[in-house]
Amino acid sequence: MSFTDFKAALKATADEVNQALKEYLPQGKPEILHESMAYSVYAGGKRLRPVLTLWTAELLGGDKKHVMPIACALELIHTYSLIHDDLPCMDDDDLRRGKPTNHVVYGEAIALLAGDALLTRAFEVMAKAVENGADSHRLLKVIGEIGEAAGSKGMVGGQVVDILSEGKKIDLETLKYIHAHKTGALFRASIRSGAIMSGASSEDLARLTEFAEYLGLAFQITDDILDVVGDETKLGKPVGSDESHAKATYPALVGLEEARRLAQESVNRAKEALAPYKEKAERFNQLLDFILTRES
Amino acid sequence: MSFTDFKAALKATADEVNQALKEYLPQGKPEILHESMAYSVYAGGKRLRPVLTLWTAELLGGDKKHVMPIACALELIHTYSLIHDDLPCMDDDDLRRGKPTNHVVYGEAIALLAGDALLTRAFEVMAKAVENGADSHRLLKVIGEIGEAAGSKGMVGGQVVDILSEGKKIDLETLKYIHAHKTGALFRASIRSGAIMSGASSEDLARLTEFAEYLGLAFQITDDILDVVGDETKLGKPVGSDESHAKATYPALVGLEEARRLAQESVNRAKEALAPYKEKAERFNQLLDFILTRES
Repeated sequence: MSFTDFKAALKATADEVNQALKEYLPQGKPEILHESMAYSVYAGGKRLRPVLTLWTAELLGGDKKHVMPIACALELIHTYSLIHDDLPCMDDDDLRRGKPTNHVVYGEAIALLAGDALLTRAFEVMAKAVENGADSHRLLKVIGEIGEAAGSKGMVGGQVVDILSEGKKIDLETLKYIHAHKTGALFRASIRSGAIMSGASSEDLARLTEFAEYLGLAFQITDDILDVVGDETKLGKPVGSDESHAKATYPALVGLEEARRLAQESVNRAKEALAPYKEKAERFNQLLDFILTRES
Repeated sequence: MSFTDFKAALKATADEVNQALKEYLPQGKPEILHESMAYSVYAGGKRLRPVLTLWTAELLGGDKKHVMPIACALELIHTYSLIHDDLPCMDDDDLRRGKPTNHVVYGEAIALLAGDALLTRAFEVMAKAVENGADSHRLLKVIGEIGEAAGSKGMVGGQVVDILSEGKKIDLETLKYIHAHKTGALFRASIRSGAIMSGASSEDLARLTEFAEYLGLAFQITDDILDVVGDETKLGKPVGSDESHAKATYPALVGLEEARRLAQESVNRAKEALAPYKEKAERFNQLLDFILTRES
């Protein structure tokens, strides 16, 4: 598979997710709330989490019909986290992916509530997948796992430590904690959910979890590097915004060259975890290269 | 059952809920987040929603072991909604139940994230009830229903319309919408969840839903009345705070006397819906009188 073919495959899956998300975004009264929710869901984004869920399911022969609601729920959760992260009492960001953030457009109160509603909707969507014939025990396992990954010992916990660390000198251990929780936990849950919905063996689940953890790490280190050396027009936000928030990054803690080496090493390890799947894992290998070489 | 016996029964169930909630509140890192979550969960409150869930299950012969996680999840969701409602970008309240609100103690960012984490934890707790032997289909139905009740077409939707109406002249229809969504939906879901977890017949579910809707209405009208004529030391917040937020209330729209009549009428109708359960519904009848005559 050429890199061009890979990018077409990525876009095709992201398009399917965008189609499905339409179904899961509520409409009607209160219109302004639903408009605000849709605004952030459709404000760009690579749909990496749902793509990971769907491709993992495909790798294991899972049924897309039953996995799609989970994939979309993960994107709703990711979107809620971005809206809340951007609020003035948090990172106070006016731009994301080159567009005004939710609270800039809709005001703080509606932005806060749009985030709350997206998070709530995610769990509703997953639970109601049973009405379409999804296996009830797998669904409950996935809901429990995503709840844990998104909660106080996962994504929200990482966000808390990130905020508490602002303006302070932190060590590599703390930076790893922030990354593993703030973004890593949801990547991990995305891949594991696709596996669980497909009835993965414990062996498959262990391998894919290892893949997920190295993928998350590669993503985070690259994110940190882009914040230092990225192109503002491609990133859609000012370069150096982590620095201006006095946030620690890999380049700041270990230097740019070592950060690049660590990102490459993570990609290599993620590929090793996938080796038993041979050519069936090719798309994932390309995705890892894409994460490493992306410009936004 | 005397009113004294009823109050003892209410306290006994609330105590059980408080015990169980301890189990469901996460501990460990990040400590400040978990402390902030526990602060609001244990900042008082009558535990009305979990009591309704548990008593409904008891009425129908449900298994308390399987209903308790749902009851506690509803209280976690109620608590998150209070934390977010009190934030500066929302109602900007410094006091609740006589105590400083979450963001006054922990700061806005942690308060926001504590709310997010409580909401997320609620769904995790419900999903994991399957590990303790709860029926998987009932659980998924309840998670879907609570998600809907708490989301953009339920509690969050009511909150949005409430905020959009501030300082505006609104009609009774809009006030009813706000009440039915902002508080009514979760009361309704509390009672229906107890019924669904107990395998209620569609007849029982219809009756109990009617009971729930009138109970919610009685609660909301009484709440509005207390805001006008209540005792500040008992309420734990300033009387007239709705007026100072330029919020519409039943007394403002229909007059105090008519508001009292409507509250009594709602209680009567709720009792009628319960009539087929005869003396088994006595505790609920007393609860309705308690809601009507409460001072906080």
